[in-house]
This record gives sequence, C-alpha cells and structure tokens, in this order.
Amino acid sequence: MKSMPQHLEPVNGRYVQMDDVEWADFPEALSEGGITWKLLNVSPEMGAWTAYYKCPKGSSFAPHVHIGPGEYFLTKGRMHVRGGTGEGGETAVAPGYGYEACNAKHVQTYFEEDSEFYMTFLGPLNFIDEDGKTVALVTWKDVQDAWEAATSR
Amino acid sequence: MKSMPQHLEPVNGRYVQMDDVEWADFPEALSEGGITWKLLNVSPEMGAWTAYYKCPKGSSFAPHVHIGPGEYFLTKGRMHVRGGTGEGGETAVAPGYGYEACNAKHVQTYFEEDSEFYMTFLGPLNFIDEDGKTVALVTWKDVQDAWEAATSR
Amino acid sequence: MKSMPQHLEPVNGRYVQMDDVEWADFPEALSEGGITWKLLNVSPEMGAWTAYYKCPKGSSFAPHVHIGPGEYFLTKGRMHVRGGTGEGGETAVAPGYGYEACNAKHVQTYFEEDSEFYMTFLGPLNFIDEDGKTVALVTWKDVQDAWEAATSR
Amino acid sequence: MKSMPQHLEPVNGRYVQMDDVEWADFPEALSEGGITWKLLNVSPEMGAWTAYYKCPKGSSFAPHVHIGPGEYFLTKGRMHVRGGTGEGGETAVAPGYGYEACNAKHVQTYFEEDSEFYMTFLGPLNFIDEDGKTVALVTWKDVQDAWEAATSR
Repeated sequence: MKSMPQHLEPVNGRYVQMDDVEWADFPEALSEGGITWKLLNVSPEMGAWTAYYKCPKGSSFAPHVHIGPGEYFLTKGRMHVRGGTGEGGETAVAPGYGYEACNAKHVQTYFEEDSEFYMTFLGPLNFIDEDGKTVALVTWKDVQDAWEAATSR
Repeated sequence: MKSMPQHLEPVNGRYVQMDDVEWADFPEALSEGGITWKLLNVSPEMGAWTAYYKCPKGSSFAPHVHIGPGEYFLTKGRMHVRGGTGEGGETAVAPGYGYEACNAKHVQTYFEEDSEFYMTFLGPLNFIDEDGKTVALVTWKDVQDAWEAATSR
Repeated sequence: MKSMPQHLEPVNGRYVQMDDVEWADFPEALSEGGITWKLLNVSPEMGAWTAYYKCPKGSSFAPHVHIGPGEYFLTKGRMHVRGGTGEGGETAVAPGYGYEACNAKHVQTYFEEDSEFYMTFLGPLNFIDEDGKTVALVTWKDVQDAWEAATSR
Repeated sequence: MKSMPQHLEPVNGRYVQMDDVEWADFPEALSEGGITWKLLNVSPEMGAWTAYYKCPKGSSFAPHVHIGPGEYFLTKGRMHVRGGTGEGGETAVAPGYGYEACNAKHVQTYFEEDSEFYMTFLGPLNFIDEDGKTVALVTWKDVQDAWEAATSR
C-alpha cells in the first residue's frame, strides 16, 4: 500500500526499422493460408498494439470481434471484410484506409490476392466460434508473447 | 463504400442525477451476496463505461481480468482485491483510490463490510474460470444491455 | 535506433489512501476562492490523470476547454458548469455524475456551496482567455509537476 | 438534465478509398516546403485522428509537442525527427515505424528527400514558439475544420 501518488516518468519513443525485422508465422489456430506478420509496438497502459501483416492470395483470418477500435492501412492487394456494420461487409482495395469500430464483428477476413496491411489496435481481438463464444481473447500481452515465442525459435 | 472521410460532430456531454436512478441487481452469474449497481455512462467509441456499486458485507465479484485500465474510488467500507500485481493483493479502505492496470487479474474481490465504490473502466472485463478460460467477456455494450434488461423489468 | 520492438512489461497497479494525502492549494492562476486538491494518479502513456477537488462556497475554475473526455463524480455540494454543450450549462447536485466530452468548453465552473468532486481526465485542460487563446495547456505532466511543487514545500 | 444514462449505439465503421481523395495543402503557418495531406479519420469521443502526408524534399513541420501518443508508418523517403526523447533525435528511413510518446517535443521534423507517411494521433498537436508557448493547439476538430476548409474551395 502506498499513500502518495507515485512519480511517473514520460514514456519513451520507439522506432522500428521494418525491413530489419523478420516475418513470423501468424498462429494457424487464428488464420489460414500462410499469413505472416511483424509486431511493431505494444502499449501496455492502454492495451494497444500495432503490427504489419502479409497475407497471401487465398488466406484468411478466423472470425473475431474487435474489442476497441482498430484502424488499417491496406498497402497492397484486396481484402474482404465480411460481417461489418452492414450486411455484406466491405471490400478494401489498396491503398485503402478502414476504421473498424469497437465491437465490430468480422465473421471472415479474406484476401483474394497477395495483400499487405498495417494496423493499429486499441484493445484486444476476441476470436469466436460459430456460437459467438470466445476461442481466444488476444490482448496486447498475448500478442507480445506470441511474437516473442515465434521469433525466439 | 465511402471515399471521403465523413464529417463527424463532437460528442455531447451527459449528466446523471444519481439518486434518481434506481439500484439494479448485479448479475448473479458474476457475483455473490447481493451486489447492486447503477450504470452511469457508456463510451461506445473507446469501449469505456462508468458505474457505481453497492456491495453488502460478505459479497464478492467472480474472478476476472481487467482488459484495459480501471480506476475506482471506494466511498464506503472495505474491499479486498486478491491476486493483484503482488502476491497478496490489496485492501482498500474508504476513502481509497485504486488504479487497476490493464491485464490485472483479480481472483477474488471481497467486501468484509457494507461498501460502495465508483469505477471507470476502459475496455472490458474478462470473467474467467479456474483454468483462466473466458466465462463472460463483458464489454461496454454487454454492460448497457445488462443494465437495460435489469431496469426494464 | 532499435530495429526490434522492445519487450514491455504490464503496468503496475497503484493505490492511494486518500486521507493520508494532504490537501494542496490549486494554482491561483487557474482558479479563485481557495480551491484545494489531491492528485491521485497520472497515466503517462495515454496522458490521463485523476484528482479530487475541494471547492469552497463561491470558488470557481478559470475558463477552460477539455481536450479529451473527463468524467466527474460530485460527492458534495453544487456545481454550475456554464457554457457546456447547450447554451445555459448544467447544474450538478451531489451525488451527481457528469461526462464532459472532448472539446467541451467551460467558460465558468462555479460552486455556490462547499463542494467536492472526484474527476478522471483523458488528455489535457486548455485554459483560455476571452479570445479563446491558450493561457495554459495543462497536461498530465504539468499536473504532476504542479502537485510535486505544491507538496514539496 | 437527464437522470438516466442514455442508450448509446455502437459506432459505425468507415472506409476511405485513398486514391479517390484529393491532396490538400497543409497549412503554411504550421509547415514549410509544400506539404500536402489527406485526412482519413477523426474520432470525436477520444479526440483521435488519422492522416496521410506527402512531404517534398526540403519540407518540414513547425515545432510541436505531441499531446497524446502518435504512431507513424513512413512509407517512402527519409524523415529527421529532432528533439525526441534523446538528444539528437531520430532518422526514420522507409519503411519505418515510430511511436511518438505523449509529451514528445519535436523542435523540427525535416524531410531530406521526397517522403510520405501515414500517422494516427491520440490527442492534439501543440505547435509552439521558441519559448514553448502555444501558437496553435490542433485538436481532431481543428484538423477536421482545416480539412473541410481546404477541400471545399
């Protein structure tokens, strides 16, 4: 127990030279078709993180709900986001920007050509089964753990 | 598809006269001992919410993880927060302030006397079983749904 | 320059026994009438902070704009918030909860009786003159600096 | 005055086809050398925004402080960020990722070749003079206003 607010220092800036970071395999339990990624940042206080994804033609992410807003910048290719706020979802074509709102449910995210995107996330991804039950709740810490496990091999 | 950023208006302020709001039962699946609550605010963009809780002597919340930071102001009584960042947890005594960090795991939150607290949450609560598996992921929207279900009876 | 994302640890929880913290004078440049306060928390990553204010009858805060949302819990007394989203402002009566939205402009915050409130802030307060020009931009760091200056005397 | 918390709906997702958005001149008061930009998103509740910038060789941004964290993805060229957390600043080379922490002060941001970057901001930019005084506090709303003024001509 501590009765006075602690003195806290400002957070340091960080820089990542992206080509110096190797691609890691994205967990197969949460995707199909050989998606690879680079973790760029985690923000432990807010629970945010940032990553870059490379998605081959035909690959996809498993169904998930965004718990907190996420923003993507599709730099290459074409991404189908099914089950967004509307009924039929969205098709993003590079260069494209998307704001995925807090509680957006994506029953499938599918890439019909080789694609790449950068994405910032505030809060976790809730991967779900057909009944909407949580299969994996992926927070910034799980993301960092997965990254470190993949890159320490 | 919309090619120009939309014009968005500032959010409106909100006010709640707390004594005019009736107490609702907090879901028994997530607590024991007759906890009641008042929902004060939800913030859909960030996924935040704010509530006031009344916890009788002997009541407790089920095990949960804070997905995003939460801040409480204990206005009355005494609250045991077990399984915080340290090994033995924390005992808050009114008036007491606590910052529960993103990813803080509370295996039990127990009230040894009649207690009340105000709390702001950024992001959901992940209620878990003994194996750490998700029993209920409670987002701002689930909180609002639970509140509206409880108060529309 | 660092080419790999750094490993970052979760943030620690914090607790403040509020009665053990002494009241400090709130800066007279930004208020009138003898307001005192206790700083409870700063969150450097997001730029958030939390404090408790004691405002004697007749006291007031200087004109300011909330840069980021703020939420108050008025525990005692009566607070006039002029120049809110509407034309005539709001009168909060304890116990009262208010959500002050990002960009809310308060030309005067006035206490017509002895009052106290708890408040969480995401982002700074922009104190302004009659022309809307910045007199003082008060971030979490300025708040911590002011607190430490006041309590180290 | 409203005594019950309002029912609030989830936020909608948004999409911007970036090539369909025209470049606008970035305000000359805050930059030199012909910087142009595209606004991609504003988030009024949190006070966040997202934009894409095109910076010709020799261009620069005026001195500013990040009030809240910002993250950039430099897609082309080379950017000197002077006066970061360290003494000598940082040089970003595309493709490069940077996390600019809350309260990071950039006395100059200079482009030594034609460069482009995508950036997300949580909270405003505080443009300052040599004495550190606020010249312009640029919030999400000011950004939207500037964008709408530039594109409605």
